[in-house]
Amino acid sequence: IDDKNEQKAKEYLKDLHPADIAELYQALNLDEAEFIYRLLDSEKAADVLMELDEDDRKKLLKRLPNEMIAKQFIDHLDTDDAVDLIRELDEEAQEEILSHIDDVEQAGDIVDLLKYDEDTAGGLMGTEMVVVNENWSMPECLKEMRIQAEDMDEIYYVYVVDDDERLKGVFPLKKMITNPSVSKIKHVMKKDPVSVKTDTPIEEVAQAFEKYDLVAVPVIDSIGRLVGRITVDDVMDEVREQAEREYQLASGLSQDVESTDTIFTQTSARLPWLLIGMFGGLANSVILGNFEAGFVSNPAMALFIPLIGGTGGNVGIQSSAIVVQGLANGSFSLRNSGKQILKELGVALINACMISALVFVYNWIRMGNNGVTISVSLSLFSVVIFASIFGTIVPMTLERFKIDPAIATGPFITITNDIIGMLIYMSISSTLA
Amino acid sequence: IDDKNEQKAKEYLKDLHPADIAELYQALNLDEAEFIYRLLDSEKAADVLMELDEDDRKKLLKRLPNEMIAKQFIDHLDTDDAVDLIRELDEEAQEEILSHIDDVEQAGDIVDLLKYDEDTAGGLMGTEMVVVNENWSMPECLKEMRIQAEDMDEIYYVYVVDDDERLKGVFPLKKMITNPSVSKIKHVMKKDPVSVKTDTPIEEVAQAFEKYDLVAVPVIDSIGRLVGRITVDDVMDEVREQAEREYQLASGLSQDVESTDTIFTQTSARLPWLLIGMFGGLANSVILGNFEAGFVSNPAMALFIPLIGGTGGNVGIQSSAIVVQGLANGSFSLRNSGKQILKELGVALINACMISALVFVYNWIRMGNNGVTISVSLSLFSVVIFASIFGTIVPMTLERFKIDPAIATGPFITITNDIIGMLIYMSISSTLA
Repeated sequence: IDDKNEQKAKEYLKDLHPADIAELYQALNLDEAEFIYRLLDSEKAADVLMELDEDDRKKLLKRLPNEMIAKQFIDHLDTDDAVDLIRELDEEAQEEILSHIDDVEQAGDIVDLLKYDEDTAGGLMGTEMVVVNENWSMPECLKEMRIQAEDMDEIYYVYVVDDDERLKGVFPLKKMITNPSVSKIKHVMKKDPVSVKTDTPIEEVAQAFEKYDLVAVPVIDSIGRLVGRITVDDVMDEVREQAEREYQLASGLSQDVESTDTIFTQTSARLPWLLIGMFGGLANSVILGNFEAGFVSNPAMALFIPLIGGTGGNVGIQSSAIVVQGLANGSFSLRNSGKQILKELGVALINACMISALVFVYNWIRMGNNGVTISVSLSLFSVVIFASIFGTIVPMTLERFKIDPAIATGPFITITNDIIGMLIYMSISSTLA
Repeated sequence: IDDKNEQKAKEYLKDLHPADIAELYQALNLDEAEFIYRLLDSEKAADVLMELDEDDRKKLLKRLPNEMIAKQFIDHLDTDDAVDLIRELDEEAQEEILSHIDDVEQAGDIVDLLKYDEDTAGGLMGTEMVVVNENWSMPECLKEMRIQAEDMDEIYYVYVVDDDERLKGVFPLKKMITNPSVSKIKHVMKKDPVSVKTDTPIEEVAQAFEKYDLVAVPVIDSIGRLVGRITVDDVMDEVREQAEREYQLASGLSQDVESTDTIFTQTSARLPWLLIGMFGGLANSVILGNFEAGFVSNPAMALFIPLIGGTGGNVGIQSSAIVVQGLANGSFSLRNSGKQILKELGVALINACMISALVFVYNWIRMGNNGVTISVSLSLFSVVIFASIFGTIVPMTLERFKIDPAIATGPFITITNDIIGMLIYMSISSTLA
């Protein structure tokens, strides 16, 4: 590649998968990358484009004229990928590109798909699929399929509709080969297939795929008409991203950052959370400031500040993580929230008793049975109970108000529990003192 | 179901997907569940069994004789599911069940599969697939396929091997329908298909599925012979579980717990981490105890303990989460570790300057330019730098020693940073005092 031997490079690229070319592309500088890009045929170039990172794709698209984007890429992409690509551009570019698409039917499909919310089945689906009528015979279907499937990548199911385009069944491709028959398709298809609606949230689509072990699912509109299909690769990305997002939020990262991002990008995702933590820490210093005299008369009080703050934070994170994950993978529903809070209270009581008893024994041996020994254990007990319930209720409440509960699991809950912990500790200490 | 109307219940169950029956089953008591279970035919019963939670499945299997497990379930399961099921039983039961399997070929496959490590492609694969020879013609392949595919659930690819059973190519099912031809299969198949080896770790298998948008991947042995296939549904479970595990470890949950687990199970997953946190807190109290006199002469020192401990914890979690996630999704490799540490140092410097400067200004206004103001900001600066580098290096080191780096992201790193933070703060304060 370095010596720009076109013939050799072309040969080499021909055998590579688009995902590998995308990786290669990202390792090169922009000049070399453009050289390679010109060697690819349009279809492969379009596939490589979709495999690039969003940032790199944007950079490349900015250098290209809109007409070329429409003719070179959009024409060769599945509608769902085309919609993803167009969504990444600004409105002006969107309109110009749409006007340059040669295939009017595809342009129409894309315009329709752009109307759906990105976070619903409608926003994830594509329109490339093989559709047959329930009253056709198997040979008719085969003939129709050969026409429809000509320029589709891969097909796993044939969808069966009635005369009003309502989804009636599916037909696994395998059966076409193993059980060829002359009967009407409606007698051999699988009836009542699993399907999702255009407004089904993406999380529920992913849950359906996992529950029913699907590789593709048909999407229907509000009156049951077949309007598209979602394939498993799009859903798998979704499952990964969703789980990663939860983890990132829990770790105090406010955007999707990777180790490969620049220092500036990383800082902008991390510093805000650290500043929130800083304000929490300063708030704590104000609270503790009210008890400054107590530290003079009883300096041992200060020694247990990290223990109480840390325990509250650890307990709160555990409780909220269980709720957030349960809501995400569908194992927990808000209908059981009363039961869940009670159960959490049970767990909290055991944890609180164990921890406060152990610390009491330790402090009793170390310092004897004085005010600090008692107030530390009493505070620990209260903090564990409070942090457990608080960590359970906050994500539930956010979910109820349709706010992503994952934002509750990160520094936010640690800091709140830290502050409440200090308030409890200082109140109990000063009451007992 | 309540009034045990067999006919009606049977009718109702017939139309339900195994995953839905499994859900229904888990909502019922054991008597009702057994009643339903007896109404299902063996194949459906086997599918329902695999959809149950591991705990419920174990409970049910314990009540059944081993011979019945072999004949009723194993015979109707795909080899990969059968292996999963058998792995859950103790050794004695395993041998008895294997001896009861009627189909000797299936029993042999299961014994072979049990030899592979659970966490590799070999442990995840099944042997149900359609295999054809590269020298056959298309009509011969179709005929062979009809025989092989008879009792397989779903097929997406036909795998092509040479006379020595080495994998040569794949053939999408779709092409059989759209391009029927009489030429030899080796001239129309897709050559050099993406494949994995039996000893490829599960994480890499999942990465291959995501990168190449696969629905199934062939598995080859060390000399390239085709030995099995892995389907996307098994991999999707893997992706979800892996991401959930990271999140759980980061949240201080030592096992896979769900909101539906009992109080006892939840406590046993949570209390150990809280106890580790408790020991950390007590260790901190010992460190702070050495400076007890300092709190008498300068009580303001105590006010900033939560700020410094909390900041160290927050920074450390961020740094380690970025490394852990990068290692898991393949975007980060140990080869770049030097570069990564330098980049982290850059981020840390910006964060440290911002936070210590802001806190300095705040404290200067609040208390004037005294020893505490200076030592708090100096400590914050050192703690941010230390926690960033420590949080980056620990997961890298664990990965190098083949220990799961995710265990570093939870309470462990928070507690360590908390303790180091106190040591730094106390040393700086006492030096300046």
